[in-house]
Amino acid sequence: MNNFLFLGGDMRSLHAAKRLGERYDCFVYGVAETESIHAPVLREITKFKSLVLPLPACADGLNINAPYSKTPIPISVIPEAVYSGGTVYCGKSCPALEKICTENNLSLIDYFEREELAVMNAIPTSEGCLEIIMREKPQTIFGSSVLLTGFGRISKVLGKLLIALGAKVTVTARKYSDLAWAEISGCETIHLSKLDDMLEKFDTIINTIPAPILDTDRLKMLKPDCLVVDLASKACVPNLENAKKEGVNIIRALSLPGKTSPVTAGYIIADTIMNILALSSETAESGDTNV
Amino acid sequence: MNNFLFLGGDMRSLHAAKRLGERYDCFVYGVAETESIHAPVLREITKFKSLVLPLPACADGLNINAPYSKTPIPISVIPEAVYSGGTVYCGKSCPALEKICTENNLSLIDYFEREELAVMNAIPTSEGCLEIIMREKPQTIFGSSVLLTGFGRISKVLGKLLIALGAKVTVTARKYSDLAWAEISGCETIHLSKLDDMLEKFDTIINTIPAPILDTDRLKMLKPDCLVVDLASKACVPNLENAKKEGVNIIRALSLPGKTSPVTAGYIIADTIMNILALSSETAESGDTNV
Amino acid sequence: MNNFLFLGGDMRSLHAAKRLGERYDCFVYGVAETESIHAPVLREITKFKSLVLPLPACADGLNINAPYSKTPIPISVIPEAVYSGGTVYCGKSCPALEKICTENNLSLIDYFEREELAVMNAIPTSEGCLEIIMREKPQTIFGSSVLLTGFGRISKVLGKLLIALGAKVTVTARKYSDLAWAEISGCETIHLSKLDDMLEKFDTIINTIPAPILDTDRLKMLKPDCLVVDLASKACVPNLENAKKEGVNIIRALSLPGKTSPVTAGYIIADTIMNILALSSETAESGDTNV
Amino acid sequence: MNNFLFLGGDMRSLHAAKRLGERYDCFVYGVAETESIHAPVLREITKFKSLVLPLPACADGLNINAPYSKTPIPISVIPEAVYSGGTVYCGKSCPALEKICTENNLSLIDYFEREELAVMNAIPTSEGCLEIIMREKPQTIFGSSVLLTGFGRISKVLGKLLIALGAKVTVTARKYSDLAWAEISGCETIHLSKLDDMLEKFDTIINTIPAPILDTDRLKMLKPDCLVVDLASKACVPNLENAKKEGVNIIRALSLPGKTSPVTAGYIIADTIMNILALSSETAESGDTNV
Repeated sequence: MNNFLFLGGDMRSLHAAKRLGERYDCFVYGVAETESIHAPVLREITKFKSLVLPLPACADGLNINAPYSKTPIPISVIPEAVYSGGTVYCGKSCPALEKICTENNLSLIDYFEREELAVMNAIPTSEGCLEIIMREKPQTIFGSSVLLTGFGRISKVLGKLLIALGAKVTVTARKYSDLAWAEISGCETIHLSKLDDMLEKFDTIINTIPAPILDTDRLKMLKPDCLVVDLASKACVPNLENAKKEGVNIIRALSLPGKTSPVTAGYIIADTIMNILALSSETAESGDTNV
Repeated sequence: MNNFLFLGGDMRSLHAAKRLGERYDCFVYGVAETESIHAPVLREITKFKSLVLPLPACADGLNINAPYSKTPIPISVIPEAVYSGGTVYCGKSCPALEKICTENNLSLIDYFEREELAVMNAIPTSEGCLEIIMREKPQTIFGSSVLLTGFGRISKVLGKLLIALGAKVTVTARKYSDLAWAEISGCETIHLSKLDDMLEKFDTIINTIPAPILDTDRLKMLKPDCLVVDLASKACVPNLENAKKEGVNIIRALSLPGKTSPVTAGYIIADTIMNILALSSETAESGDTNV
Repeated sequence: MNNFLFLGGDMRSLHAAKRLGERYDCFVYGVAETESIHAPVLREITKFKSLVLPLPACADGLNINAPYSKTPIPISVIPEAVYSGGTVYCGKSCPALEKICTENNLSLIDYFEREELAVMNAIPTSEGCLEIIMREKPQTIFGSSVLLTGFGRISKVLGKLLIALGAKVTVTARKYSDLAWAEISGCETIHLSKLDDMLEKFDTIINTIPAPILDTDRLKMLKPDCLVVDLASKACVPNLENAKKEGVNIIRALSLPGKTSPVTAGYIIADTIMNILALSSETAESGDTNV
Repeated sequence: MNNFLFLGGDMRSLHAAKRLGERYDCFVYGVAETESIHAPVLREITKFKSLVLPLPACADGLNINAPYSKTPIPISVIPEAVYSGGTVYCGKSCPALEKICTENNLSLIDYFEREELAVMNAIPTSEGCLEIIMREKPQTIFGSSVLLTGFGRISKVLGKLLIALGAKVTVTARKYSDLAWAEISGCETIHLSKLDDMLEKFDTIINTIPAPILDTDRLKMLKPDCLVVDLASKACVPNLENAKKEGVNIIRALSLPGKTSPVTAGYIIADTIMNILALSSETAESGDTNV
């Protein structure tokens, strides 16, 4: 029977351990002890068949990301926590992790690379974004004009929710198939090449394109009290000073799942690990390596 | 041509004046002057054909509700602000207002009694409630179990939004036709007489029944980290000490439209006044008094 | 223990008997025998505690509505089918039924008068209407312009479904609170007094107002290939010849639940009877007559 | 200025010509003349800058697909209908078409290969499928249990509509990210490897997987009155005799857009051609060949 140690991390790790704990023995180490109501806490590291590292696993190449641990947890501890031949699950791998796993005969699986995790994370990201809009704007989302830039995973979920809340949503993107999906979702659409014509009408802009698309010229075109929520990995407003001058309220919101919905974010990690386990057992049974 | 003075009130009055100002001359007096970008501010009271008082109009029977005015505005000022034969629009009337209007040959119309205003206010109330849930809970609304008590205007709107956000919503009510509407909205239903059987499963409870339905016995049945948002005019938890003891988080949220979405709340007031004007012009044209 | 005989009716009676049969002994008599897979068939009438008559129960004051029975079933048979003191459930009562029940000490309850039945029937009515539109129009509902006249039970459900299917829905009604509900549902709204201005733009009109609102003048304003689905009890087009002349396609669709979804319509009848039973047991327990 | 001849096809061609005709000169040839109210009809073929062939363009390698033309239209007519250097738009190309275009210096563009056309066609396909379900089942979609196999374009749209109509939808697929999207849409999910466990509960099954997934064993597991709508290019039920024996109602529904919503299907073709035109003008302007 498989068992799991969750090493480091935040509330997400506790709730991932709780969820995975419904099926397997799961322990946590290096998270706030007061939270032990959610998952059994290990006093001292012993060996497990599987180890789960947080998201991100290791920021500096030396220590496991463990903000609530009183002492640092070096990655060199990993071989003491997993049997040789065991598996290490991590979120966002790095060369140091890969090296230590290879040297100790451990499989390393990055759950953050699973598409279903990215898909499910669009839910807490979208709810976090809605909360920001509700908090910042003195008008309801119902009846307001919202621009969504890009129509990937997050925009697909967020667009559906905004429509359900009664916003008038416009989607801009470069690919016509993205615009087709947006139209099906009930959104107005405008090709990115024609965006300037409409910029003045939006109460709120939600950006998911990792590019500086709101340059100084475009900032001038916005409504004075426009709210911009930037969810993309690269800032859409290159010059924040200019934004302030134009009265535009810009909120850069990154890593929302862990911040606003750590319980759900933890469940998503646990569910993804269960998918990985199911896939590997299927493969084992069928001898099929082309899953 | 009709014209309007908005006397006292808060941001709602400014935005109501702005909206009504798209069709009629509208001035404000006794609101924060810095907001004069939204509506022209009167320096000194002169006579108008119509006067609009805020919601609520007058809390103490003496002064108009004017939290941002530097000096109190007594209701005795009303005859100086409306021509004899004119109309006073107010939110929640009171005997003192009625008296002064009768004595000065002014029609008094309470826009707060219009059904469409109550219906539209369900929107900002619902969004305010969603914001509270998103802020308070470390899990997403998606996938969470929510109980809605009662299925009147607010619950109808809130239930639809929660379903759209992916919550599992259960509605409890006494009338079977209310439960039928809830079922049509995609909610599970349980008759109020059988509520106890299910209480333990909810992550969040939203109350709209003005009665102490969460007594000490029922508080014990809730999940320890259950959130209760009480939107009803009478508290659903008679004993807050007991709630704390059981780990239940209770938030009493009254008058949400004015607090969280004053712009929209102001628009709703303006739209309601426009409906009243349309009705009276229809009546005048047709001589039909039974509209 | 209560038991039930379903006398006459169509497929609805069979499925109502099947659903109620999950909790009580239920038999049918006077429905097509080949359908006995759904409910046990009685060969000869014997006495039951409760009798269920179809919807409508009795069209001519003499015989029970039993279109699939080989021989007529006179209402005079009722006392042979229910014990004195028992209950007769019927859909749409009539004086003849009332007389025979009174004379034989039987309670007569009209389930068709229950509000929740009318609410739930809006579902099969709406789906039946959607099927008509899909069958008749060579364009999708998605993207088409639909007018809904009136905003009662059926329109509320139908409006929501049409919006979900991607139609641009406009609601016209006289009451501003109805228009407010329509706006919340995502519909455009226009007061009935201003309808003429917009009539030319609709691909489909669904009428729920029992009045001749599409008179000859208005028929001329419609798109030539406009489809009118008339769900109201009184025809909205007084002159069908004129409609044909204008190329307008009018479909009068009455009693849709029994025609297009008899299974569901039967379930709704059974569920309503269960509500009536729950109400009377509650009353009996509590001695409360003011439920 | 560009101009277009639509050669052959059915009602879709007429409506595509009508829509494209809002921006460009468009004529039709070889479609039913009675429909000339929608688009101007050419008496004799002359040269245009662009030619639009139907979907499919040419079934036999000899003649253009023109079911309403009194005489066959051989593909050899193409050079008489387009100037050298012009463009031929077609749906589903074939070697014969490619040859004739190459030999006559014509660009050949297959609009059926555009992703946005496939996306938009999911709408008429889904509505056509809903119409079939509504027509075939004596119960409402509301409250019924529906299985969707596969979660590609059609299932994504259909799933959303079924949920909106109140069905309990279960999605089965092999990829976990597909199941994640289905969960976000409000569907229950089950991995394809575990489908057998649930098969007995569905009132309706909609198949989009082009594989014989409903073999004889699985047919025996279905509800006796189960409806199967097969939308996939390869039949999901390999043995129709067995299906009949089990009382399963199977409807194979291919090419729904052209059959049930030719107007919309035509608009989609026109919109796709407009996208292609926009893309090529963008490229021309920017000199960018990597669009």
